[in-house]
Amino acid sequence: VKHYEPLLSLFNAHLDHYRAELSSKQPKELYEPENYILSLDGKRIRPLLSLIACDLYDKDPKLALDAALAVEIFHNFTLIHDDILDNAPLRRGQATVHTKWNSNIGILSGDVMLAKAFDVLNRYNATLSKTLNTVFIKTSIEVCEGQQWDMNYEKDPSVTVKDYTRMITYKTAVLLGCSLQMGSICGGAPLSDQEHIYEFGKHLGIAFQLLDDMLDVYATNDLKFGKQIGGDIISNKKTYLLLKAFELANTSQKKQLQLSLSDRDPVKKVKGVMDIYDQLNIKLLSEEAADEHTKRAINYLHLINTGTDKKKCLEELAYQLLNRVI
Amino acid sequence: VKHYEPLLSLFNAHLDHYRAELSSKQPKELYEPENYILSLDGKRIRPLLSLIACDLYDKDPKLALDAALAVEIFHNFTLIHDDILDNAPLRRGQATVHTKWNSNIGILSGDVMLAKAFDVLNRYNATLSKTLNTVFIKTSIEVCEGQQWDMNYEKDPSVTVKDYTRMITYKTAVLLGCSLQMGSICGGAPLSDQEHIYEFGKHLGIAFQLLDDMLDVYATNDLKFGKQIGGDIISNKKTYLLLKAFELANTSQKKQLQLSLSDRDPVKKVKGVMDIYDQLNIKLLSEEAADEHTKRAINYLHLINTGTDKKKCLEELAYQLLNRVI
Repeated sequence: VKHYEPLLSLFNAHLDHYRAELSSKQPKELYEPENYILSLDGKRIRPLLSLIACDLYDKDPKLALDAALAVEIFHNFTLIHDDILDNAPLRRGQATVHTKWNSNIGILSGDVMLAKAFDVLNRYNATLSKTLNTVFIKTSIEVCEGQQWDMNYEKDPSVTVKDYTRMITYKTAVLLGCSLQMGSICGGAPLSDQEHIYEFGKHLGIAFQLLDDMLDVYATNDLKFGKQIGGDIISNKKTYLLLKAFELANTSQKKQLQLSLSDRDPVKKVKGVMDIYDQLNIKLLSEEAADEHTKRAINYLHLINTGTDKKKCLEELAYQLLNRVI
Repeated sequence: VKHYEPLLSLFNAHLDHYRAELSSKQPKELYEPENYILSLDGKRIRPLLSLIACDLYDKDPKLALDAALAVEIFHNFTLIHDDILDNAPLRRGQATVHTKWNSNIGILSGDVMLAKAFDVLNRYNATLSKTLNTVFIKTSIEVCEGQQWDMNYEKDPSVTVKDYTRMITYKTAVLLGCSLQMGSICGGAPLSDQEHIYEFGKHLGIAFQLLDDMLDVYATNDLKFGKQIGGDIISNKKTYLLLKAFELANTSQKKQLQLSLSDRDPVKKVKGVMDIYDQLNIKLLSEEAADEHTKRAINYLHLINTGTDKKKCLEELAYQLLNRVI
């Protein structure tokens, strides 16, 4: 949304300043990876949401800059550690930290980033700092829990759609809610608004993740720049689609699904699984599930007690984020 | 020191309560390692120091329980991650977390512990919480930096005694200072006292580490329960002793030191290095360096503006800690 470009520039300047400070810190093996990962992500959705939420209350969005920065540092800390856990060689087309340096440096530079996120939050006055910490700490713990559920589910044959939804909620959606709530706290939002904007972000995040799962299978190649169609199927990832399919499949469909999943030919594997998806109408069901969460998100947005114009802009941004996924 | 047994019991009860809460948390893969590592360390020196520092100001030591708990959780988080970095199979004679579970679980359960340390600190009122956070965050960052220096020095042939002293200061000594300062903050200490008790703990920590290095080579077997004499020499660890020896050695002694270090026979290796240590009086020099830091620690203790009796007890504890090392 073009309307938000000034806020994004504001944050980017703040981040640049932080990164410039990093570049003189010693030992460089500890701080270069932080500087590197912070240079890779151009979207800055989370910090932008913090500034937008503060701006909703007609307060200077600069007040939310450190909350936004803490969230962005935290998010990038999770990327470094998650990439180690997933053994991922690439992140946004560039070498992951543990590939460019090594796992030990990845672990330790991630650790220091988590401490630095709290350091940045501790710049606020005592009252604000404590309130922000309460939201931020709760979310940090949930993100770790979500990542652990995700690792557990890889080996667990009994995972359900409900388990999966909780996992993506913790692993990715709560941080969007947290970003918004922290920004609204900086803007002086009352507690009820804080809760509503948090829920808006959370359900938006769930919708986003559900659409992302669908995109992996049903996106046209144009929109899937750099990713393989059906990559999740090939890697046996337990997505919403697969779990929903197992939930709805009859005995013979379950058998065929299992058979296709063990197919060594990736093209036949994707085709076989998609065949069952089609029989069970999985694409539509995924879209409906995402729509449901989008609707809940927007309902929460409407409950927020601020001017309609600014909320309208945020609603537009939400739809834009979701559209980009499909 | 017998005098402190009630404080230790007080902390242990608080820790037991925290661990009981942990045991019901999900996912258990995330919280069982935390519970496990917290069950291994019986000494609890850091949290005890927090309670002692609070008690110096005749305040109820219960006020420092959460600060003490945060420090203990943080310390155990660093143990889990350091053991991964060092590839260590054992910790206090028991399997390390990454050995008992796996590295991924070690990384993630460590991460959540760091977040939980902040969670525990956030239980204090806003003003106290911010003051405690300031000390705790600075220290957390320094501990990470110390660990990174330590990793760097393994491969760096130009490390000096000065580098080494900074490394052990950051890696281990500052957390002792931090534990004491945080306790004193809970007791209402003025800033000057906070600084003095921090420096007391820091120099005590440096002395402790220097003596620990010496112990590795010169302790009798009785006192080195479970550890091999000269283990540091065998593993080419850059200790104070080795770096001091390189600093003082003449050309021929340097050559002999290098030669001994590359000896494949561990017995001959230890003997060769110790021979140079003897020529250069390294044992005495290490003791003197430790004594120097002990003296500085005690001087800082004397500068603290509280009753003499309680300071005397703390001085006794300091000497007891140092004696146990030798």
